[in-house]
Amino acid sequence: MAMQIKESLYEKDDVASMIEWLASYGLTEKQGVTRLLYSKAWVQAQRALKTEMEKVGLRTHFDSVGNLFGRLEGTNPGSKTILTGSHIDTVVEGGKYDGAFGVIASFLAVQRLHQTYGPPQKTIEVVSFCEEEGSRFPLTFWGSRNIQGVYGLDQVKGLMDSEGYPFLKAMKEAGFDPDTYITPVRDDIEGFVEIHIEQGSILEKNQKTIGVVSHIVGQRRYTIRVLGESNHAGTTPMHDRRDAVSAASEYISFLTSKAKEMDPHLVATVGKVDVFPNVPNVVAGEVAFSLDIRHHQEDVLNSFCREIFSTFQSHADGNEIQLEVAQWMDVVPVELSTEMNSLVREITENHKIPYQDIISGAGHDAQVFGSICPTCLLFVPSRDGISHSPREFTNIQDLEKGIDVLSDLLYKLAY
Amino acid sequence: MAMQIKESLYEKDDVASMIEWLASYGLTEKQGVTRLLYSKAWVQAQRALKTEMEKVGLRTHFDSVGNLFGRLEGTNPGSKTILTGSHIDTVVEGGKYDGAFGVIASFLAVQRLHQTYGPPQKTIEVVSFCEEEGSRFPLTFWGSRNIQGVYGLDQVKGLMDSEGYPFLKAMKEAGFDPDTYITPVRDDIEGFVEIHIEQGSILEKNQKTIGVVSHIVGQRRYTIRVLGESNHAGTTPMHDRRDAVSAASEYISFLTSKAKEMDPHLVATVGKVDVFPNVPNVVAGEVAFSLDIRHHQEDVLNSFCREIFSTFQSHADGNEIQLEVAQWMDVVPVELSTEMNSLVREITENHKIPYQDIISGAGHDAQVFGSICPTCLLFVPSRDGISHSPREFTNIQDLEKGIDVLSDLLYKLAY
Repeated sequence: MAMQIKESLYEKDDVASMIEWLASYGLTEKQGVTRLLYSKAWVQAQRALKTEMEKVGLRTHFDSVGNLFGRLEGTNPGSKTILTGSHIDTVVEGGKYDGAFGVIASFLAVQRLHQTYGPPQKTIEVVSFCEEEGSRFPLTFWGSRNIQGVYGLDQVKGLMDSEGYPFLKAMKEAGFDPDTYITPVRDDIEGFVEIHIEQGSILEKNQKTIGVVSHIVGQRRYTIRVLGESNHAGTTPMHDRRDAVSAASEYISFLTSKAKEMDPHLVATVGKVDVFPNVPNVVAGEVAFSLDIRHHQEDVLNSFCREIFSTFQSHADGNEIQLEVAQWMDVVPVELSTEMNSLVREITENHKIPYQDIISGAGHDAQVFGSICPTCLLFVPSRDGISHSPREFTNIQDLEKGIDVLSDLLYKLAY
Repeated sequence: MAMQIKESLYEKDDVASMIEWLASYGLTEKQGVTRLLYSKAWVQAQRALKTEMEKVGLRTHFDSVGNLFGRLEGTNPGSKTILTGSHIDTVVEGGKYDGAFGVIASFLAVQRLHQTYGPPQKTIEVVSFCEEEGSRFPLTFWGSRNIQGVYGLDQVKGLMDSEGYPFLKAMKEAGFDPDTYITPVRDDIEGFVEIHIEQGSILEKNQKTIGVVSHIVGQRRYTIRVLGESNHAGTTPMHDRRDAVSAASEYISFLTSKAKEMDPHLVATVGKVDVFPNVPNVVAGEVAFSLDIRHHQEDVLNSFCREIFSTFQSHADGNEIQLEVAQWMDVVPVELSTEMNSLVREITENHKIPYQDIISGAGHDAQVFGSICPTCLLFVPSRDGISHSPREFTNIQDLEKGIDVLSDLLYKLAY
């Protein structure tokens, strides 16, 4: 199965121009991309990708929710499928690389392998997932979770976007009539490979070109309501106050220092704070703050949560503060395929491409597949770590190196 | 000058019904009062008060900004004036007692003294200040600071309310044409006496009927902007963050504990916190929070501010945080007349009325007069410490005792 990809192979086609081409579907005035699930730009982009796939000899089809597949049939009869790809949807004013690069890289890798080596032994499919971001409707992984069989129409009935447009109506208008829905679940996937931009700055700082993702973190999100008593800022002595802002500040300071101290991979973020009544000369009676906690080991998440919430509660009890903790997200950590990652390390060492093992702090379609089949997730660097922004950028050399590694891996898996 | 007020004097007229009568100007559905400067309710209330003053033999006039005076001429020719009263304006959905009680109490006290003892030796004037709250236009003490000579038309040119209505237009329509403005400054005030609800719960807790205010606190207000860097909550390790929320939390925790520790009369309040972009899964790049600091001694305010701001700055420097501190209020502390307060203590002891010395944590017209003439400020209890709310309440016994003490003091000062 060992191979040497010819250098010339990578000069024929141009990943940079394909990035710009795909970004033209949903391009904004600020040179960002807004390509929301089932929007006009989304429909046009998926159809255009379908046409490109067909041009290079892939057999295409959409499933019931709009996941696009381009199939290169294997010569080995009855073989399972190696799936590779990423998502087509973006956040509002997102970048040109998030999701899109993974779709394009998979397309180019399979095209190049096909051109150079002909059909593989095992079937390879390129996938452009319909949705991952949760940026239009309040749910994420609509594409991959339908394939996994965890999501179906029940999850989106009654769901509306921020403008009150129903999910099922948008789905139907995009060409995917819920009345003809057949579950997109797949039981023929032998392995899944995704390449994605890092969306962080670790690779850039360490001057690495490839990140070999060992784990995708688990994520827990909470809203914590701190209920004290609203009072006059001038006439209420400090010791008589039940000040929700100062209580919340204690909790945030504590959880931040505890996260720093407990484990270098643990992150805990309070990104949203709302104060009531939020007036300079009134002691605040209520604060609601968000808490986003991520780590790749469930037991670290457990012990962090146990420790901070019990500390919050003791403080609250001692200060006549009422505390309400509501969890609204619980995604378990995923460990990616150690076998595939070994193959990737071999490949990068052969090509003398600088790489490192890395933990993904963001969610990806790969985490859905991680629970159903051996899965590999590769990163290329993000300039300044910026993502979800028109300033998102990865240089062409890194993109091409990513495609090299992906191609080699697919070769090792399917040829 | 010693006197014994006849008990019967206080049975004739009814403070409670007069409170309800004045509250009828601007009464809201929630049984609150909204009587904003130069509004229709305000105009009607000042005119109605003028009529009542005239009925009981006071000589009335409005000055150029709408302060209403009711004058009881002294028999001593060339005597200066003892001024007594409070403000007529309210906050939006305020209570029936804040300001209003002081105007009514002064009116009733002077009426009763006049009925019982005839004209005083020194002239007494009842005043209903046009504005103290700053609840319609963004300035406070428009009434008393015009009398003080510190404010004039220059301070309000171009000023608009939250609906874009110009100050000078509202003033003219209320009957006070800026073109005929003559400075309301007074240099004939020998002393000023104000009675007001406490707006806090100290008297109630200590079961006292009268608060003898020794000082009105100085107030400093700031907006503190904490500038860090916005980042992905999943991909940015804790030690690489410049998190504005966690920095602001450190500052708030520090200033709160420092205020508790430095002086029992010091209060420091962060009532307003605004976070940007305020999204759960994004490390916040910016926080702006308000800081309201009050104490009756300038040197305590100075040393507190020095200590907290230098600590904030050291923390910011060590964490690549940029700090912007903007002060937008600086009111100096005022010490009230020790001579008048001695008279008040004598009176309350004679009448066996429970009293205590108290520091006012809220601002009052008395603090403007405190810098130009001997000034006395008296408090009656507020039920549950509530003010600026339809739930504001003081029981009739306490109101009457307040009028008793005020009457006796005016007798001692003017008869």
